[in-house]
Amino acid sequence: MLFLAALRGENRGRAPVWLMRQAGRYLAEYRALRERHAFKEMCQNPDLAVEVSLLPHRLLDVDAVIVFYDILIPVEGMGAPLVYTEEGPAFTEPVRDARALERLRPLEPERHTASILAAIRRLRGELGERKPVIGFAGAPFTLASYLVEGKPGAGAGAVKRLLFEDPGLLHRLLERLAEMSIAYLRAQVEAGAHAVQLFDTWAGELAGPEYREFALPYQRRVFEALRAAPPPVPAILFVRGGAHLVEEMAASGADALSLDWRASLRAARERLGPRPALQGNLDPAALFAAPERVRERARAILEDRRGDRAFIFNLGHGVLPGTPVESVRALIEAVKSFDSPKK
Amino acid sequence: MLFLAALRGENRGRAPVWLMRQAGRYLAEYRALRERHAFKEMCQNPDLAVEVSLLPHRLLDVDAVIVFYDILIPVEGMGAPLVYTEEGPAFTEPVRDARALERLRPLEPERHTASILAAIRRLRGELGERKPVIGFAGAPFTLASYLVEGKPGAGAGAVKRLLFEDPGLLHRLLERLAEMSIAYLRAQVEAGAHAVQLFDTWAGELAGPEYREFALPYQRRVFEALRAAPPPVPAILFVRGGAHLVEEMAASGADALSLDWRASLRAARERLGPRPALQGNLDPAALFAAPERVRERARAILEDRRGDRAFIFNLGHGVLPGTPVESVRALIEAVKSFDSPKK
Repeated sequence: MLFLAALRGENRGRAPVWLMRQAGRYLAEYRALRERHAFKEMCQNPDLAVEVSLLPHRLLDVDAVIVFYDILIPVEGMGAPLVYTEEGPAFTEPVRDARALERLRPLEPERHTASILAAIRRLRGELGERKPVIGFAGAPFTLASYLVEGKPGAGAGAVKRLLFEDPGLLHRLLERLAEMSIAYLRAQVEAGAHAVQLFDTWAGELAGPEYREFALPYQRRVFEALRAAPPPVPAILFVRGGAHLVEEMAASGADALSLDWRASLRAARERLGPRPALQGNLDPAALFAAPERVRERARAILEDRRGDRAFIFNLGHGVLPGTPVESVRALIEAVKSFDSPKK
Repeated sequence: MLFLAALRGENRGRAPVWLMRQAGRYLAEYRALRERHAFKEMCQNPDLAVEVSLLPHRLLDVDAVIVFYDILIPVEGMGAPLVYTEEGPAFTEPVRDARALERLRPLEPERHTASILAAIRRLRGELGERKPVIGFAGAPFTLASYLVEGKPGAGAGAVKRLLFEDPGLLHRLLERLAEMSIAYLRAQVEAGAHAVQLFDTWAGELAGPEYREFALPYQRRVFEALRAAPPPVPAILFVRGGAHLVEEMAASGADALSLDWRASLRAARERLGPRPALQGNLDPAALFAAPERVRERARAILEDRRGDRAFIFNLGHGVLPGTPVESVRALIEAVKSFDSPKK
């Protein structure tokens, strides 16, 4: 499997390609299901989650299948009530003090997130060794962003305020979230995930010193725990807007760094050496361009990474709602057909 | 005036300090006025605008006074209806097609934005040559972000979609906005502004190629027009999250680059040489820390820039609502009392 070979830095074939949020609202088949089912139901009913996870495999033949779920559901499993509104997800009881923190309980993956584990097992049964299955979790800092904020769509404002006002409280929250992420990702690996991605979406809002204190140690703890427990699987770290944090991201011990369009893949490779693997980094908004232009943009990235044995093509963030499917198809085809003799 | 000397790269005294959104909701005196007056009225009534502009001068003795106004009001002057909601400003008729574009008319500064010009004249009368008065405008790409989006608080999603879907239309919109910014800033300079700042807040959402095509040429056009018309005044360019764009920002011809907390001032100075001036870059969230910690953070930045004759202390973005005034005071005092022998 090209994807796993690239994660090991041993890919001599073409670059593998999958897309964050490849199973999403831009697909008519997804929207048809969403008309009949709430978002949470789609995540928590394994029949639906498997069907949705496989849509981009069936329709676009991407090189990896990421299980359909949401990063916040395990946090609800810890006891934080979660609603999905039109504006986005929201925790109705934000965690901003010690009392709220004390109410959080450890995640029991088989109890609180049984559906994602069932979905991973079924995806493995369905796909065999033809395509890798990717599990995932939110990183502690990013989960804390949602948990401290409460309101949907508000970003990292509240967690950054807490970070400076009461760093000790935030550390205690991050420790609990790290424990959760470890238990949760281990269960996904045991269920059969070939690789996992840790989404630290909001950590790119931090300057270096705060990233090194509040994001990096918890990422590192998660990756170390994954390496310590068999079977070891490769782990990818995603940070949105992390161009200024490439060295710090690498210090997490991730097998691959998923960078967004603001980062230079070439500069990252030059600074980091042949490993870790790099994943990225087309701007998802570029998929609104005409298909020929999308192909050009994809080829420019592939040209830049020609001969890189540790490169995975992806977007810099998730596929946007409203993205034309024909552009996504053009992108996947452009990657697959790119002439790429390896050094 | 230290601020103007630093903009020329000739400051041999301590670093000057002012703060973006220094006249804002974190001040009780501001909130008291806002209880009696709508936001737009505060901008458009020169008595109120002058009073608000002077609050941080009177209360905190900052080294420069930026006139109180909003970047979107001149866009309303072009004929785009603008409302201020609880969630933020919104254009009720978003510009996303040629017809909407054709409805925009050129700005007549003395007619459409008379209040800011009156406020600048009065601030000059009030302050004489004791403190510099800063004028400002939104940069074309950032104004387009709001104008294309329509909804409050939504960021650069809609403008980036348009950028890829219909780049020609976006260029035509940006041309009109650049003409507006030029007329508007010239009028502010004629009214007495000592310096101006161009806010390209959302341009940091762009990768290098898009920044070079859709942000940089319009910034450059504005700065060139300002240099061509007497009296020449120094111009500052602010980009939020522009750490990956420092060279491009410098290529705009700005006299100073205002960087946020994600950028390294040291790295920028090493790459750019002794000019342009640099402004920044404490994370505004850091003002939620205890005053002693705020002083430490300020001193770390000042230590790094020690001997830099072209450095202006500021935040990486505006002061946040809820920021403790004592922290802001501690910050200003730390900058003013920092022992800074110049090379």
